[in-house]
Amino acid sequence: MSEELRVIPLRGIPELEERDDLGALVVEAAPGFEDDDVLVVAQKAVSKVEGRVIDLGDVEPSERARELAGDSDSRRLEVILREAREVIRSRPPLVIAETRHGFVCASAGVDASNAKGPDTLVLLPVDPDASATRLRERIRDLTGKHVGVIVSDSFGRAWRRGTTDVALGVAGVVAVLDLDGRRDAAGYELHATQIAVADELAGAAQLVMGKLDGIPAAIVRGARVRGDGRGSDLVMPRKRDLFR
Amino acid sequence: MSEELRVIPLRGIPELEERDDLGALVVEAAPGFEDDDVLVVAQKAVSKVEGRVIDLGDVEPSERARELAGDSDSRRLEVILREAREVIRSRPPLVIAETRHGFVCASAGVDASNAKGPDTLVLLPVDPDASATRLRERIRDLTGKHVGVIVSDSFGRAWRRGTTDVALGVAGVVAVLDLDGRRDAAGYELHATQIAVADELAGAAQLVMGKLDGIPAAIVRGARVRGDGRGSDLVMPRKRDLFR
Repeated sequence: MSEELRVIPLRGIPELEERDDLGALVVEAAPGFEDDDVLVVAQKAVSKVEGRVIDLGDVEPSERARELAGDSDSRRLEVILREAREVIRSRPPLVIAETRHGFVCASAGVDASNAKGPDTLVLLPVDPDASATRLRERIRDLTGKHVGVIVSDSFGRAWRRGTTDVALGVAGVVAVLDLDGRRDAAGYELHATQIAVADELAGAAQLVMGKLDGIPAAIVRGARVRGDGRGSDLVMPRKRDLFR
Repeated sequence: MSEELRVIPLRGIPELEERDDLGALVVEAAPGFEDDDVLVVAQKAVSKVEGRVIDLGDVEPSERARELAGDSDSRRLEVILREAREVIRSRPPLVIAETRHGFVCASAGVDASNAKGPDTLVLLPVDPDASATRLRERIRDLTGKHVGVIVSDSFGRAWRRGTTDVALGVAGVVAVLDLDGRRDAAGYELHATQIAVADELAGAAQLVMGKLDGIPAAIVRGARVRGDGRGSDLVMPRKRDLFR
Protein backbone atom coordinates (compact mmCIF):
# COMPACT_ATOMS: atom_id res chain seq x y z
CA MET A 1 0.00 0.00 0.00
CA SER A 2 2.87 2.41 -0.39
CA GLU A 3 2.95 3.33 -4.06
CA GLU A 4 1.78 6.71 -5.28
CA LEU A 5 -1.99 6.98 -5.66
CA ARG A 6 -3.92 8.86 -8.28
CA VAL A 7 -7.52 9.91 -7.76
CA ILE A 8 -9.18 10.70 -11.08
CA PRO A 9 -12.61 12.35 -11.36
CA LEU A 10 -14.93 10.98 -14.05
CA ARG A 11 -16.55 13.92 -15.82
CA GLY A 12 -19.43 14.04 -18.27
CA ILE A 13 -21.71 11.43 -16.72
CA PRO A 14 -25.23 12.78 -17.39
CA GLU A 15 -28.05 13.13 -14.86
CA LEU A 16 -29.11 9.53 -14.31
CA GLU A 17 -32.47 7.83 -14.78
CA GLU A 18 -33.82 4.41 -13.86
CA ARG A 19 -32.39 1.60 -16.01
CA ASP A 20 -29.52 3.72 -17.36
CA ASP A 21 -26.45 1.57 -18.03
CA LEU A 22 -24.25 3.11 -15.34
CA GLY A 23 -21.36 0.76 -16.09
CA ALA A 24 -21.29 1.84 -19.73
CA LEU A 25 -21.55 5.53 -18.80
CA VAL A 26 -18.66 5.14 -16.37
CA VAL A 27 -16.52 3.38 -18.96
CA GLU A 28 -17.27 6.13 -21.47
CA ALA A 29 -16.28 8.82 -18.93
CA ALA A 30 -13.10 7.06 -17.79
CA PRO A 31 -9.67 7.58 -19.36
CA GLY A 32 -9.42 3.79 -19.67
CA PHE A 33 -9.41 1.30 -16.82
CA GLU A 34 -6.44 -0.68 -15.51
CA ASP A 35 -6.55 -3.89 -13.51
CA ASP A 36 -6.88 -3.11 -9.79
CA ASP A 37 -8.25 0.37 -10.32
CA VAL A 38 -10.91 1.11 -7.72
CA LEU A 39 -14.03 2.77 -9.09
CA VAL A 40 -15.87 4.77 -6.45
CA VAL A 41 -19.46 5.64 -7.36
CA ALA A 42 -21.78 7.84 -5.32
CA GLN A 43 -24.70 5.92 -3.82
CA LYS A 44 -27.15 8.42 -5.25
CA ALA A 45 -26.07 7.59 -8.80
CA VAL A 46 -26.50 3.87 -8.15
CA SER A 47 -29.86 4.35 -6.45
CA LYS A 48 -31.21 6.42 -9.32
CA VAL A 49 -30.42 3.81 -11.98
CA GLU A 50 -31.86 1.13 -9.68
CA GLY A 51 -35.12 3.04 -9.33
CA ARG A 52 -34.69 3.62 -5.60
CA VAL A 53 -36.55 6.91 -5.89
CA ILE A 54 -39.80 7.78 -4.16
CA ASP A 55 -42.39 10.49 -4.82
CA LEU A 56 -43.62 12.10 -1.60
CA GLY A 57 -47.05 12.50 -3.19
CA ASP A 58 -47.58 8.77 -2.68
CA VAL A 59 -46.65 8.80 1.03
CA GLU A 60 -49.11 8.92 3.96
CA PRO A 61 -47.29 9.83 7.20
CA SER A 62 -47.89 7.83 10.37
CA GLU A 63 -48.37 9.38 13.79
CA ARG A 64 -44.78 8.63 14.74
CA ALA A 65 -43.52 10.28 11.57
CA ARG A 66 -45.48 13.41 12.50
CA GLU A 67 -43.93 13.44 15.97
CA LEU A 68 -40.38 13.05 14.67
CA ALA A 69 -40.86 15.59 11.90
CA GLY A 70 -41.35 18.61 14.15
CA ASP A 71 -42.04 21.47 11.73
CA SER A 72 -40.58 19.60 8.75
CA ASP A 73 -42.35 17.44 6.15
CA SER A 74 -43.75 14.40 7.96
CA ARG A 75 -43.95 12.43 4.68
CA ARG A 76 -40.15 12.56 4.53
CA LEU A 77 -39.96 11.20 8.08
CA GLU A 78 -42.37 8.43 7.11
CA VAL A 79 -40.01 7.37 4.32
CA ILE A 80 -37.09 7.44 6.76
CA LEU A 81 -38.97 5.26 9.27
CA ARG A 82 -39.76 2.74 6.53
CA GLU A 83 -36.05 2.51 5.69
CA ALA A 84 -34.99 2.25 9.34
CA ARG A 85 -34.57 -0.85 11.45
CA GLU A 86 -34.16 1.30 14.55
CA VAL A 87 -34.05 5.00 15.41
CA ILE A 88 -30.83 5.58 17.36
CA ARG A 89 -31.19 9.29 18.17
CA SER A 90 -33.63 11.98 17.17
CA ARG A 91 -33.95 15.69 17.65
CA PRO A 92 -36.70 16.87 15.28
CA PRO A 93 -36.31 16.97 12.37
CA LEU A 94 -32.94 15.19 12.66
CA VAL A 95 -33.04 11.39 12.87
CA ILE A 96 -30.04 9.09 13.22
CA ALA A 97 -31.16 5.59 12.35
CA GLU A 98 -29.89 2.12 11.64
CA THR A 99 -30.83 1.05 8.15
CA ARG A 100 -31.94 -2.45 7.26
CA HIS A 101 -28.36 -3.04 6.07
CA GLY A 102 -27.02 -2.15 9.54
CA PHE A 103 -25.58 1.25 8.63
CA VAL A 104 -26.06 3.95 11.26
CA CYS A 105 -26.52 7.30 9.55
CA ALA A 106 -28.63 10.42 9.28
CA SER A 107 -32.14 9.90 7.88
CA ALA A 108 -31.51 6.17 7.31
CA GLY A 109 -29.68 7.22 4.16
CA VAL A 110 -32.75 8.92 2.66
CA ASP A 111 -31.70 11.99 0.72
CA ALA A 112 -33.14 14.74 -1.46
CA SER A 113 -32.87 13.91 -5.12
CA ASN A 114 -31.85 17.48 -5.99
CA ALA A 115 -32.36 17.39 -9.76
CA LYS A 116 -35.83 15.87 -9.50
CA GLY A 117 -37.16 18.52 -7.15
CA PRO A 118 -38.15 18.73 -3.49
CA ASP A 119 -40.89 16.06 -3.62
CA THR A 120 -38.59 13.26 -4.73
CA LEU A 121 -36.38 11.32 -2.35
CA VAL A 122 -33.59 8.86 -3.08
CA LEU A 123 -33.21 5.73 -0.91
CA LEU A 124 -30.12 3.61 -0.39
CA PRO A 125 -29.70 0.64 -2.74
CA VAL A 126 -31.40 -2.52 -1.47
CA ASP A 127 -28.08 -4.40 -1.52
CA PRO A 128 -25.08 -2.10 -2.07
CA ASP A 129 -22.63 -5.02 -2.31
CA ALA A 130 -24.72 -6.51 -5.11
CA SER A 131 -24.79 -3.11 -6.82
CA ALA A 132 -20.99 -2.91 -6.60
CA THR A 133 -20.63 -6.45 -7.90
CA ARG A 134 -22.89 -5.77 -10.90
CA LEU A 135 -20.86 -2.67 -11.79
CA ARG A 136 -17.62 -4.62 -11.43
CA GLU A 137 -18.91 -7.33 -13.76
CA ARG A 138 -20.26 -4.85 -16.29
CA ILE A 139 -16.91 -3.05 -16.44
CA ARG A 140 -15.09 -6.35 -16.84
CA ASP A 141 -17.44 -7.27 -19.70
CA LEU A 142 -16.91 -3.92 -21.42
CA THR A 143 -13.17 -3.47 -20.85
CA GLY A 144 -11.70 -6.84 -19.87
CA LYS A 145 -10.25 -5.16 -16.77
CA HIS A 146 -10.67 -6.43 -13.22
CA VAL A 147 -11.47 -3.37 -11.14
CA GLY A 148 -12.70 -2.97 -7.60
CA VAL A 149 -15.90 -1.05 -7.00
CA ILE A 150 -17.05 0.93 -3.98
CA VAL A 151 -20.53 2.43 -3.65
CA SER A 152 -20.02 5.46 -1.39
CA ASP A 153 -22.13 7.84 0.63
CA SER A 154 -21.50 10.85 2.86
CA PHE A 155 -22.02 9.98 6.52
CA GLY A 156 -21.79 12.17 9.57
CA ARG A 157 -19.83 10.90 12.55
CA ALA A 158 -20.27 10.95 16.29
CA TRP A 159 -18.10 13.62 17.99
CA ARG A 160 -16.72 15.11 14.78
CA ARG A 161 -18.14 17.82 12.53
CA GLY A 162 -18.79 17.34 8.84
CA THR A 163 -19.31 14.27 6.71
CA THR A 164 -16.77 11.94 5.20
CA ASP A 165 -17.58 9.55 2.41
CA VAL A 166 -17.64 5.89 3.42
CA ALA A 167 -18.15 2.59 1.62
CA LEU A 168 -21.64 1.07 1.67
CA GLY A 169 -21.06 -1.49 -1.05
CA VAL A 170 -17.76 -3.16 -1.90
CA ALA A 171 -16.71 -5.59 -4.64
CA GLY A 172 -13.20 -6.82 -5.40
CA VAL A 173 -11.56 -4.65 -2.73
CA VAL A 174 -10.40 -5.08 0.85
CA ALA A 175 -12.92 -3.47 3.20
CA VAL A 176 -11.06 -3.71 6.53
CA LEU A 177 -7.32 -4.40 6.44
CA ASP A 178 -6.36 -6.44 9.49
CA LEU A 179 -2.71 -6.05 10.49
CA ASP A 180 -3.08 -7.90 13.78
CA GLY A 181 0.07 -9.88 14.46
CA ARG A 182 2.06 -8.40 11.56
CA ARG A 183 5.28 -6.56 12.25
CA ASP A 184 6.09 -2.97 11.40
CA ALA A 185 9.33 -1.60 9.97
CA ALA A 186 10.91 -1.64 13.44
CA GLY A 187 9.92 -5.28 14.03
CA TYR A 188 7.20 -4.37 16.50
CA GLU A 189 4.16 -6.63 16.39
CA LEU A 190 0.95 -4.71 15.75
CA HIS A 191 -2.14 -5.40 17.86
CA ALA A 192 -5.76 -4.52 17.21
CA THR A 193 -4.77 -2.65 14.08
CA GLN A 194 -7.63 -2.75 11.63
CA ILE A 195 -7.80 -0.09 8.96
CA ALA A 196 -11.06 0.76 7.23
CA VAL A 197 -9.39 0.95 3.84
CA ALA A 198 -12.60 1.04 1.81
CA ASP A 199 -13.84 4.03 3.80
CA GLU A 200 -10.54 5.85 3.21
CA LEU A 201 -10.78 5.10 -0.51
CA ALA A 202 -14.33 6.48 -0.56
CA GLY A 203 -13.18 9.62 1.26
CA ALA A 204 -10.25 10.11 -1.11
CA ALA A 205 -12.60 9.86 -4.09
CA GLN A 206 -14.97 12.40 -2.54
CA LEU A 207 -12.18 14.99 -2.67
CA VAL A 208 -12.43 15.02 -6.47
CA MET A 209 -16.12 14.18 -6.87
CA GLY A 210 -17.49 17.28 -5.25
CA LYS A 211 -21.14 17.95 -4.63
CA LEU A 212 -21.10 21.17 -6.63
CA ASP A 213 -19.70 19.75 -9.83
CA GLY A 214 -22.05 16.86 -10.47
CA ILE A 215 -19.22 14.32 -10.66
CA PRO A 216 -20.68 11.05 -9.36
CA ALA A 217 -17.64 8.80 -9.74
CA ALA A 218 -13.86 8.66 -9.52
CA ILE A 219 -11.09 6.14 -10.03
CA VAL A 220 -8.45 5.50 -7.37
CA ARG A 221 -5.39 4.08 -9.10
CA GLY A 222 -2.32 2.61 -7.44
CA ALA A 223 -3.83 1.31 -4.21
CA ARG A 224 -2.93 -2.32 -3.62
CA VAL A 225 -6.23 -3.30 -2.16
CA ARG A 226 -7.48 -6.24 -4.20
CA GLY A 227 -9.64 -8.39 -1.97
CA ASP A 228 -13.07 -9.73 -1.29
CA GLY A 229 -14.40 -7.32 1.31
CA ARG A 230 -18.09 -6.51 1.72
CA GLY A 231 -19.81 -3.39 2.93
CA SER A 232 -21.03 -5.34 5.93
CA ASP A 233 -17.40 -5.88 7.04
CA LEU A 234 -17.39 -2.17 7.92
CA VAL A 235 -20.40 -2.38 10.19
CA MET A 236 -19.56 -2.82 13.88
CA PRO A 237 -21.38 -5.87 15.19
CA ARG A 238 -24.03 -4.72 17.63
CA LYS A 239 -22.68 -6.72 20.57
CA ARG A 240 -19.21 -5.21 20.19
CA ASP A 241 -20.55 -1.67 19.79
CA LEU A 242 -19.98 0.57 22.82
CA PHE A 243 -22.19 3.28 21.32
CA ARG A 244 -25.53 1.59 20.88
CA MET B 1 -12.03 20.35 -5.86
CA SER B 2 -12.32 18.39 -9.07
CA GLU B 3 -8.82 18.08 -10.51
CA GLU B 4 -6.90 14.85 -10.35
CA LEU B 5 -5.22 14.21 -7.02
CA ARG B 6 -1.89 12.57 -6.39
CA VAL B 7 -0.99 11.04 -3.05
CA ILE B 8 2.77 10.62 -2.73
CA PRO B 9 4.41 8.66 0.11
CA LEU B 10 7.57 10.18 1.61
CA ARG B 11 10.11 7.42 2.05
CA GLY B 12 13.40 7.39 3.90
CA ILE B 13 12.46 9.42 6.96
CA PRO B 14 14.47 7.81 9.78
CA GLU B 15 13.15 6.74 13.18
CA LEU B 16 12.58 10.05 14.95
CA GLU B 17 13.99 11.39 18.19
CA GLU B 18 13.20 14.43 20.32
CA ARG B 19 14.38 17.70 18.75
CA ASP B 20 14.89 16.18 15.30
CA ASP B 21 14.20 18.75 12.56
CA LEU B 22 11.10 17.04 11.15
CA GLY B 23 10.53 19.79 8.58
CA ALA B 24 14.01 19.35 7.16
CA LEU B 25 13.67 15.55 7.10
CA VAL B 26 10.37 15.86 5.26
CA VAL B 27 11.83 18.25 2.71
CA GLU B 28 14.73 15.88 2.15
CA ALA B 29 12.34 12.96 1.60
CA ALA B 30 9.96 14.85 -0.69
CA PRO B 31 10.28 14.98 -4.48
CA GLY B 32 10.06 18.78 -4.19
CA PHE B 33 7.10 20.75 -2.86
CA GLU B 34 4.64 22.82 -4.86
CA ASP B 35 2.45 25.62 -3.58
CA ASP B 36 -0.81 24.21 -2.18
CA ASP B 37 0.55 20.74 -1.65
CA VAL B 38 -0.85 19.28 1.54
CA LEU B 39 1.69 17.53 3.74
CA VAL B 40 0.10 14.92 5.99
CA VAL B 41 2.29 13.80 8.90
CA ALA B 42 1.47 11.05 11.35
CA GLN B 43 0.86 12.34 14.87
CA LYS B 44 3.33 9.86 16.27
CA ALA B 45 6.17 11.37 14.24
CA VAL B 46 5.29 14.86 15.47
CA SER B 47 4.92 13.72 19.07
CA LYS B 48 8.32 12.01 19.04
CA VAL B 49 10.21 15.10 17.86
CA GLU B 50 8.25 17.18 20.38
CA GLY B 51 9.29 14.86 23.22
CA ARG B 52 5.73 13.73 23.97
CA VAL B 53 7.03 10.36 25.07
CA ILE B 54 6.65 8.84 28.52
CA ASP B 55 8.47 6.01 30.25
CA LEU B 56 6.11 3.73 32.19
CA GLY B 57 8.81 3.20 34.79
CA ASP B 58 8.10 6.71 36.06
CA VAL B 59 4.33 6.19 36.40
CA GLU B 60 2.48 5.32 39.62
CA PRO B 61 -1.06 4.09 38.84
CA SER B 62 -4.04 5.47 40.76
CA GLU B 63 -6.89 3.35 42.10
CA ARG B 64 -9.11 4.35 39.16
CA ALA B 65 -6.39 3.37 36.68
CA ARG B 66 -6.22 -0.07 38.31
CA GLU B 67 -9.99 -0.46 37.98
CA LEU B 68 -10.07 0.52 34.31
CA ALA B 69 -7.03 -1.58 33.45
CA GLY B 70 -8.61 -4.95 34.13
CA ASP B 71 -5.80 -7.42 33.51
CA SER B 72 -3.73 -4.94 31.48
CA ASP B 73 -0.94 -2.60 32.63
CA SER B 74 -2.49 -0.09 35.03
CA ARG B 75 0.40 2.33 34.48
CA ARG B 76 -0.77 2.69 30.89
CA LEU B 77 -4.29 3.46 32.09
CA GLU B 78 -2.86 6.05 34.47
CA VAL B 79 -1.21 7.83 31.55
CA ILE B 80 -4.49 7.70 29.60
CA LEU B 81 -6.41 9.20 32.53
CA ARG B 82 -3.89 12.03 32.80
CA GLU B 83 -4.41 12.83 29.10
CA ALA B 84 -8.22 12.61 29.35
CA ARG B 85 -10.68 15.33 30.17
CA GLU B 86 -13.47 12.77 30.45
CA VAL B 87 -13.89 9.02 30.03
CA ILE B 88 -16.77 8.51 27.56
CA ARG B 89 -16.98 4.70 27.57
CA SER B 90 -14.87 1.94 29.05
CA ARG B 91 -14.76 -1.83 28.91
CA PRO B 92 -11.47 -2.91 30.48
CA PRO B 93 -8.91 -2.47 29.14
CA LEU B 94 -10.55 -0.38 26.39
CA VAL B 95 -11.14 3.29 27.20
CA ILE B 96 -12.77 5.84 24.90
CA ALA B 97 -11.99 9.29 26.24
CA GLU B 98 -12.16 12.93 25.39
CA THR B 99 -8.69 14.45 25.30
CA ARG B 100 -7.88 17.88 26.62
CA HIS B 101 -8.10 19.08 22.99
CA GLY B 102 -11.68 17.81 22.74
CA PHE B 103 -10.96 14.78 20.54
CA VAL B 104 -12.92 11.65 21.39
CA CYS B 105 -10.79 8.59 20.71
CA ALA B 106 -9.46 5.34 22.08
CA SER B 107 -6.98 5.66 24.96
CA ALA B 108 -7.11 9.48 24.83
CA GLY B 109 -4.69 9.18 21.91
CA VAL B 110 -2.03 7.41 24.00
CA ASP B 111 -0.24 4.85 21.88
CA ALA B 112 2.61 2.36 22.04
CA SER B 113 5.84 3.81 20.73
CA ASN B 114 6.72 0.58 18.89
CA ALA B 115 10.38 1.25 18.17
CA LYS B 116 11.19 2.29 21.74
CA GLY B 117 9.76 -0.85 23.30
CA PRO B 118 6.74 -1.79 25.37
CA ASP B 119 7.49 0.51 28.32
CA THR B 120 7.38 3.70 26.30
CA LEU B 121 4.17 5.48 25.33
CA VAL B 122 3.60 8.34 22.92
CA LEU B 123 1.09 11.08 23.78
CA LEU B 124 -0.71 13.43 21.40
CA PRO B 125 1.00 16.77 20.74
CA VAL B 126 0.05 19.47 23.26
CA ASP B 127 -1.28 21.69 20.45
CA PRO B 128 -1.54 19.87 17.10
CA ASP B 129 -2.51 23.05 15.21
CA ALA B 130 0.64 24.73 16.50
CA SER B 131 2.65 21.67 15.44
CA ALA B 132 1.14 21.89 11.95
CA THR B 133 1.84 25.60 11.76
CA ARG B 134 5.47 25.17 12.78
CA LEU B 135 5.97 22.52 10.10
CA ARG B 136 4.27 24.72 7.50
CA GLU B 137 6.59 27.61 8.39
CA ARG B 138 9.69 25.44 8.42
CA ILE B 139 8.86 24.09 4.95
CA ARG B 140 8.24 27.61 3.67
CA ASP B 141 11.61 28.72 5.07
CA LEU B 142 13.41 25.77 3.47
CA THR B 143 11.63 25.66 0.09
CA GLY B 144 9.82 28.96 -0.42
CA LYS B 145 6.62 26.99 -1.02
CA HIS B 146 3.32 27.57 0.75
CA VAL B 147 2.02 24.16 1.69
CA GLY B 148 -0.81 23.06 3.92
CA VAL B 149 -0.04 20.71 6.79
CA ILE B 150 -2.23 18.14 8.53
CA VAL B 151 -1.15 16.21 11.62
CA SER B 152 -3.09 12.93 11.39
CA ASP B 153 -3.96 10.04 13.64
CA SER B 154 -5.91 6.78 13.27
CA PHE B 155 -9.24 6.99 15.10
CA GLY B 156 -11.91 4.37 15.54
CA ARG B 157 -15.51 5.34 14.90
CA ALA B 158 -18.83 4.64 16.52
CA TRP B 159 -20.84 2.00 14.63
CA ARG B 160 -18.16 1.22 12.05
CA ARG B 161 -15.26 -1.22 12.19
CA GLY B 162 -11.68 -0.22 11.64
CA THR B 163 -9.86 3.06 11.95
CA THR B 164 -9.61 5.89 9.48
CA ASP B 165 -7.01 8.60 9.70
CA VAL B 166 -8.34 12.00 10.70
CA ALA B 167 -6.87 15.47 11.11
CA LEU B 168 -5.86 16.54 14.62
CA GLY B 169 -3.84 19.57 13.61
CA VAL B 170 -4.37 21.73 10.53
CA ALA B 171 -2.47 24.68 9.04
CA GLY B 172 -3.13 26.40 5.74
CA VAL B 173 -5.93 24.03 4.72
CA VAL B 174 -9.72 24.00 4.91
CA ALA B 175 -10.84 21.76 7.75
CA VAL B 176 -14.61 21.65 7.15
CA LEU B 177 -15.93 22.78 3.75
CA ASP B 178 -19.32 24.39 4.21
CA LEU B 179 -21.49 24.26 1.09
CA ASP B 180 -24.63 25.48 2.82
CA GLY B 181 -26.60 27.67 0.44
CA ARG B 182 -24.42 26.92 -2.59
CA ARG B 183 -25.98 25.35 -5.67
CA ASP B 184 -25.05 22.08 -7.28
CA ALA B 185 -24.70 21.36 -11.01
CA ALA B 186 -28.48 21.02 -11.33
CA GLY B 187 -29.10 24.36 -9.62
CA TYR B 188 -30.35 22.76 -6.40
CA GLU B 189 -29.46 24.65 -3.25
CA LEU B 190 -27.52 22.50 -0.80
CA HIS B 191 -28.47 22.48 2.88
CA ALA B 192 -26.50 21.30 5.88
CA THR B 193 -23.73 20.08 3.61
CA GLN B 194 -20.47 20.27 5.48
CA ILE B 195 -17.62 18.09 4.33
CA ALA B 196 -14.76 17.16 6.66
CA VAL B 197 -12.17 17.73 3.96
CA ALA B 198 -9.16 17.60 6.27
CA ASP B 199 -10.24 14.21 7.58
CA GLU B 200 -10.63 12.89 4.03
CA LEU B 201 -7.16 14.22 3.15
CA ALA B 202 -5.72 12.46 6.21
CA GLY B 203 -7.46 9.21 5.22
CA ALA B 204 -6.22 9.46 1.63
CA ALA B 205 -2.66 9.91 2.89
CA GLN B 206 -2.97 6.89 5.18
CA LEU B 207 -3.53 4.71 2.13
CA VAL B 208 0.10 5.27 1.10
CA MET B 209 1.66 5.74 4.53
CA GLY B 210 1.02 2.29 5.86
CA LYS B 211 1.76 1.09 9.33
CA LEU B 212 3.98 -1.72 8.12
CA ASP B 213 6.30 0.36 6.00
CA GLY B 214 7.39 3.02 8.44
CA ILE B 215 6.29 5.86 6.16
CA PRO B 216 5.22 8.68 8.48
CA ALA B 217 4.26 11.30 5.89
CA ALA B 218 2.72 11.84 2.47
CA ILE B 219 1.94 14.70 0.13
CA VAL B 220 -1.54 15.20 -1.34
CA ARG B 221 -1.15 17.22 -4.53
CA GLY B 222 -3.94 18.75 -6.60
CA ALA B 223 -6.56 19.32 -3.90
CA ARG B 224 -7.84 22.87 -3.97
CA VAL B 225 -8.17 23.22 -0.25
CA ARG B 226 -6.16 26.30 0.71
CA GLY B 227 -7.75 27.79 3.81
CA ASP B 228 -7.32 28.61 7.45
CA GLY B 229 -9.01 25.67 9.14
CA ARG B 230 -8.01 24.37 12.56
CA GLY B 231 -8.18 20.93 14.05
CA SER B 232 -10.77 22.21 16.49
CA ASP B 233 -13.14 22.96 13.58
CA LEU B 234 -13.53 19.19 13.25
CA VAL B 235 -14.63 18.69 16.83
CA MET B 236 -18.41 18.59 17.32
CA PRO B 237 -19.33 21.17 19.95
CA ARG B 238 -20.56 19.35 23.03
CA LYS B 239 -23.98 20.98 23.05
CA ARG B 240 -24.67 19.95 19.43
CA ASP B 241 -23.44 16.40 20.00
CA LEU B 242 -26.19 13.77 20.09
CA PHE B 243 -23.71 11.11 21.20
CA ARG B 244 -22.39 12.46 24.48
